Amino acid sequence: MKQRLLTPGPTPVPEETLLELARPMIFHRTAEFRAMLAEVLADLQKIFCTKNIILPLTSSGTGALEAALANSVPAGGKVICLIAGKFGERWKNIAAAFGLESVNLTVPYGEAVQPAQLEKALADHPDAVAVCSTLSETSTGIGHDIEAFGKIVAKTPTLLIVDAVSGLGAMECRTDDWQIDLCCTGSQKALMMPPGLAFVSVSDRAWQAIDRNPQARTFYFDLKRARKSLEANDTPYTPAHTMIRAMRVSLKKILAEGIENVWARQQRYAAAARAGFQALGLDIFPARPNSALSVARMPANIDSTAVLTRLEKQYGLKLANGQDSLKGKIIRLAHMGYVDQFDILAAIAGVELVLIQMGHPVEPGAGVAAVQRVFAQA
Amino acid sequence: MKQRLLTPGPTPVPEETLLELARPMIFHRTAEFRAMLAEVLADLQKIFCTKNIILPLTSSGTGALEAALANSVPAGGKVICLIAGKFGERWKNIAAAFGLESVNLTVPYGEAVQPAQLEKALADHPDAVAVCSTLSETSTGIGHDIEAFGKIVAKTPTLLIVDAVSGLGAMECRTDDWQIDLCCTGSQKALMMPPGLAFVSVSDRAWQAIDRNPQARTFYFDLKRARKSLEANDTPYTPAHTMIRAMRVSLKKILAEGIENVWARQQRYAAAARAGFQALGLDIFPARPNSALSVARMPANIDSTAVLTRLEKQYGLKLANGQDSLKGKIIRLAHMGYVDQFDILAAIAGVELVLIQMGHPVEPGAGVAAVQRVFAQA
Repeated sequence: MKQRLLTPGPTPVPEETLLELARPMIFHRTAEFRAMLAEVLADLQKIFCTKNIILPLTSSGTGALEAALANSVPAGGKVICLIAGKFGERWKNIAAAFGLESVNLTVPYGEAVQPAQLEKALADHPDAVAVCSTLSETSTGIGHDIEAFGKIVAKTPTLLIVDAVSGLGAMECRTDDWQIDLCCTGSQKALMMPPGLAFVSVSDRAWQAIDRNPQARTFYFDLKRARKSLEANDTPYTPAHTMIRAMRVSLKKILAEGIENVWARQQRYAAAARAGFQALGLDIFPARPNSALSVARMPANIDSTAVLTRLEKQYGLKLANGQDSLKGKIIRLAHMGYVDQFDILAAIAGVELVLIQMGHPVEPGAGVAAVQRVFAQA
Repeated sequence: MKQRLLTPGPTPVPEETLLELARPMIFHRTAEFRAMLAEVLADLQKIFCTKNIILPLTSSGTGALEAALANSVPAGGKVICLIAGKFGERWKNIAAAFGLESVNLTVPYGEAVQPAQLEKALADHPDAVAVCSTLSETSTGIGHDIEAFGKIVAKTPTLLIVDAVSGLGAMECRTDDWQIDLCCTGSQKALMMPPGLAFVSVSDRAWQAIDRNPQARTFYFDLKRARKSLEANDTPYTPAHTMIRAMRVSLKKILAEGIENVWARQQRYAAAARAGFQALGLDIFPARPNSALSVARMPANIDSTAVLTRLEKQYGLKLANGQDSLKGKIIRLAHMGYVDQFDILAAIAGVELVLIQMGHPVEPGAGVAAVQRVFAQA
């Protein structure tokens, strides 16, 4: 059966990129590899919308979050964590692991932290060294208003650190214009690569904080060490260099389309997916949906786990379940990266067929027609 | 020109493994992937010669070193670092990054730390929480007598932590019999994979130390968290799952031969490489050579950088230079992993031709004949 991977990471990887991964090994301490690394980082600057230095890490996205926090916030420092789901909670957990004091601004799953809430928290905690947010909260499908957060945080000496792992490359994210001090991402989401690489951009303000911090409290993720190596287009330790080589292909694909065009296309995809879900009688779960993935709540009498099992077994469609307390309640359809409009159509078509089989009242064709109406308008 | 990669990591990857890396993406939170991970870790136990749990990390080998040290040694704890080259120095640097007190047992480049030296250091520092050693010191080509170190350390409450990144899978390393508490390795050396994965095995004694440690001081490399996830054949964060999938192929290759047979073959390769170098009038640099790579000192009037450039440009042979103060003085020929006896023959043949071109007095055929004599005896 033909397989369609529509999970919020890992995401499909273009065939040309996969073939690059199969090319023979090379040595990494060479002019050839240094040129590849420089090219990838320059391309990423365009995707991040930043002039800031971007440091490559061989790790999951979580490694980039750890790097951002451990380097910029000294031991005992205070951070404000904006928590709207599992990945917001991860900020709190990383802060705890590094002995930081975290002020937790928590909203119910499905909601987004409001700029006014952040403004108040910053007023209450002017000594906070950093605000940690998610761009796209992958666990619920909400998107945070990072542009508004940036305006608020920039008025203070506090740093803005953003987990853009599942958002960057799929939804608008202007690192410099939005004044994001440390912007973190991973390879396996909208950047159309397998997991294994992470990246963090660092603003001048963030470097000042990093340089002031007496001890990074990490060796592997020491950003000062990484910056020094990068002066020679190098990395402190052996990087996942064949992934860097392959990533050039995926990034060129993004830049050939243009990052703003990708964002606009993703917005259409998200609008189409939401319209499809709603035409099937499903509610959209997030109050402030992002355009990397679309999340629908199942009717009370239908377990999303059963829906997802049927989608996979009968139709080769792999969507994601909710996590923890949301398991069985929602389905997550990711459309970032190497996914096109007909993949979304297929996903909604599959959900439509499964819901009909499970006795949910749906007119055949209602979901896909709604998807088509959105695409016809574009 | 046909390329031959003979550097001490990255090393050549078998074609079948490379093709696995080009297969389509899959989701990682599935029974299918969990079975793959369990299979890889079970195969690694045979290669590590251990019944201990092995934890997978998405990082360079250095990530495994950080994980071992940060989890098992509490803040302010004392470690004895055995330093015989750049990777021994890395232990000292990681210890410093984590605020540990390091007692440095340093020998000149090219020499190995002697068991008697370790015995004395442990007697002088009975409060040391860990001894950190390298198995193969990649920068000089020496191999440490980890078996002897294990006997000495096991008489004390101190842990034995071994950087086996470039040694494991190439030279004898019996994790359990030699009483190695934390044994660290990376994917890109003798395990015949690209860089991007690391592994650490943890003994019961090491777990006791880890469980006693009030704070791991790392989130990404938190071994307790990794152990908990592994109970469900899972990882705490998105792993480089397509590398795990591909690694099965390389590990099956090792196990089809049998790890003890691999060690014996590597010993023959190392003996042949050394005989070849010596027949060319080159001295073997390490006093206690290991069988993962062979390192020769250049004659005083010949710069190894020039030799290596000619080898690469004229013959497609990629060997490695010395690092830092050894740059220009030595050449490093790695024969671990997916390298066979005729690759070694080619490397010695190339060095022979280049030395003749550079005016070094060598009888054509002397080097390759010496290589052949070793193989003929086997």
